[in-house]
Amino acid sequence: MKIAYDCQGGDNAPEAIVRGALKAAEVFNCTPYFYGDADRIKVIDGVDPDYVIHCSESIEGDESPTMAIRKKKDSAIVRALFDLKEDRVDGVISAGSTGALLAGGMFIVSRQEGVERAALPVILTVGSQTKLLLDVGANMDASPEMLLSFAKMGADYLSHVEGVENPSVGLLNVGTEKGKGNRQTKDAYELFEENLPNFYGNVEARDVLFKSSDVIVCDGFAGNVMLKSMEGVIGYVQHALKSGLMREDCSPEVQAWVGKFAKEALGALDYTRYGGVPLLGLKKPLFKAHGSSDEEAIVSATKALIKMIKE
Amino acid sequence: MKIAYDCQGGDNAPEAIVRGALKAAEVFNCTPYFYGDADRIKVIDGVDPDYVIHCSESIEGDESPTMAIRKKKDSAIVRALFDLKEDRVDGVISAGSTGALLAGGMFIVSRQEGVERAALPVILTVGSQTKLLLDVGANMDASPEMLLSFAKMGADYLSHVEGVENPSVGLLNVGTEKGKGNRQTKDAYELFEENLPNFYGNVEARDVLFKSSDVIVCDGFAGNVMLKSMEGVIGYVQHALKSGLMREDCSPEVQAWVGKFAKEALGALDYTRYGGVPLLGLKKPLFKAHGSSDEEAIVSATKALIKMIKE
Repeated sequence: MKIAYDCQGGDNAPEAIVRGALKAAEVFNCTPYFYGDADRIKVIDGVDPDYVIHCSESIEGDESPTMAIRKKKDSAIVRALFDLKEDRVDGVISAGSTGALLAGGMFIVSRQEGVERAALPVILTVGSQTKLLLDVGANMDASPEMLLSFAKMGADYLSHVEGVENPSVGLLNVGTEKGKGNRQTKDAYELFEENLPNFYGNVEARDVLFKSSDVIVCDGFAGNVMLKSMEGVIGYVQHALKSGLMREDCSPEVQAWVGKFAKEALGALDYTRYGGVPLLGLKKPLFKAHGSSDEEAIVSATKALIKMIKE
Repeated sequence: MKIAYDCQGGDNAPEAIVRGALKAAEVFNCTPYFYGDADRIKVIDGVDPDYVIHCSESIEGDESPTMAIRKKKDSAIVRALFDLKEDRVDGVISAGSTGALLAGGMFIVSRQEGVERAALPVILTVGSQTKLLLDVGANMDASPEMLLSFAKMGADYLSHVEGVENPSVGLLNVGTEKGKGNRQTKDAYELFEENLPNFYGNVEARDVLFKSSDVIVCDGFAGNVMLKSMEGVIGYVQHALKSGLMREDCSPEVQAWVGKFAKEALGALDYTRYGGVPLLGLKKPLFKAHGSSDEEAIVSATKALIKMIKE
């Protein structure tokens, strides 16, 4: 199995990407292809220079994703996606700009038949449960029909890649009762009811983590608001704990307890643990690793991508 | 000043409502009018029977608000709102159904001129700062023009009632840059830029509490998703702290520290401390107290309502 790694994207590129790819190659017996600045990649221990594809351009975070994909033909992401399209590799991993990866996925790899728009999920691992919330940023405006296709893509991913049997699908909404919501969610409710045998009903934002369906569907605007609202509170709690621990009245015993609490309980809410997110609805497997990915995150991303390729 | 109290709505009605109203009457030198079941109200110490308006019907939480307001003419909320409309009282406080109060506000009291829709804010008190997020549930779909009117109503309330000088107004969005968002927020951005001298720009959900404008504007769907996402995480953290404290390895010292932390740090995120929310955009002052309001909450609600009446 041939995996293309964008070695230009992400906070720790190219080193962490390359080292993670080499480690994954050992573990999963796959072949890594490195796209990026050859001079920087070849010096990393263990890299076979024959598998380095030198790219002279790179896409920056502040560029328009669509324009960047069109203009920068010799960037890592564009070259990797063309190789994916033309079957020279089996899947692509990038820790770079989500927008550029999405735009490239749509324009270069293109959508699966019958899919109007690709979608970007997050995988939430809550205790032993794996849930998928989508869309969280690819589609700011979504018709009820688009939401229905997200529902199907999400359920497919969970069942085929994560092994969740017959996943239930809920609709993010402002109340649990039918008839709640805005025009979009009211119409989507009807559509889901008619088309999804495993429709769970509406899910309120406060219940997404612990009392909800396996898949939770929303448009990219609501998904983004939801994730960032959660992040805001988590960040606040972490900050407040830290400030509290720095007070003089704080004994080593309390510090130990709180440190453990922060790691375990708040860590459970950290959706970045999954390593990244798949792009759903495209003809070929693409995986967006987190921008802050380290070596281990790239190994996890590779694991998920390989499952996607096999399915 | 004559204040009408809906003594049918809220978890602790009528006792907490009546006692809070009596206390507020002493503190703020206003006259309370009690709407509800006269038999239950008159037996409470300190109630002057001449100020009790007996109502034979009551609106339940599971009724359609609009239908209930139209049909139940002898419910506390409908009678109080008619008295408000006809200037027999100066303001109304209810801890009952938000939907019924909103519907009654729109149909009985009616909107201010030039206001298309009433809006429901929450007041967030963060440290020494008072912020206002709206709409959080009255308008599931909102045009950019409606968002602009929410912006103006919110800024008016903050400056006149809360004494925030020249409040800045931000737009809840998925990124801070201009051009981010869905159709609604992109258009609203342009409108805000043209019409609000104190426009702050876009505000991401993660920054609402601590790094944002005084007023944050969104439609009722996004506002609801945001508040409930925050609630979900806060609830989870509280639960995790409690479970942790019940473990055997948890000493009294740790318990004390964590108890204090939960109260102070998590308490700071509790937007119910404000006592309730004003309904903005109506011809007369209406205040929605929290359903769980106790005596003290009714006193706070009265204080806020009196400020609204004076302004």
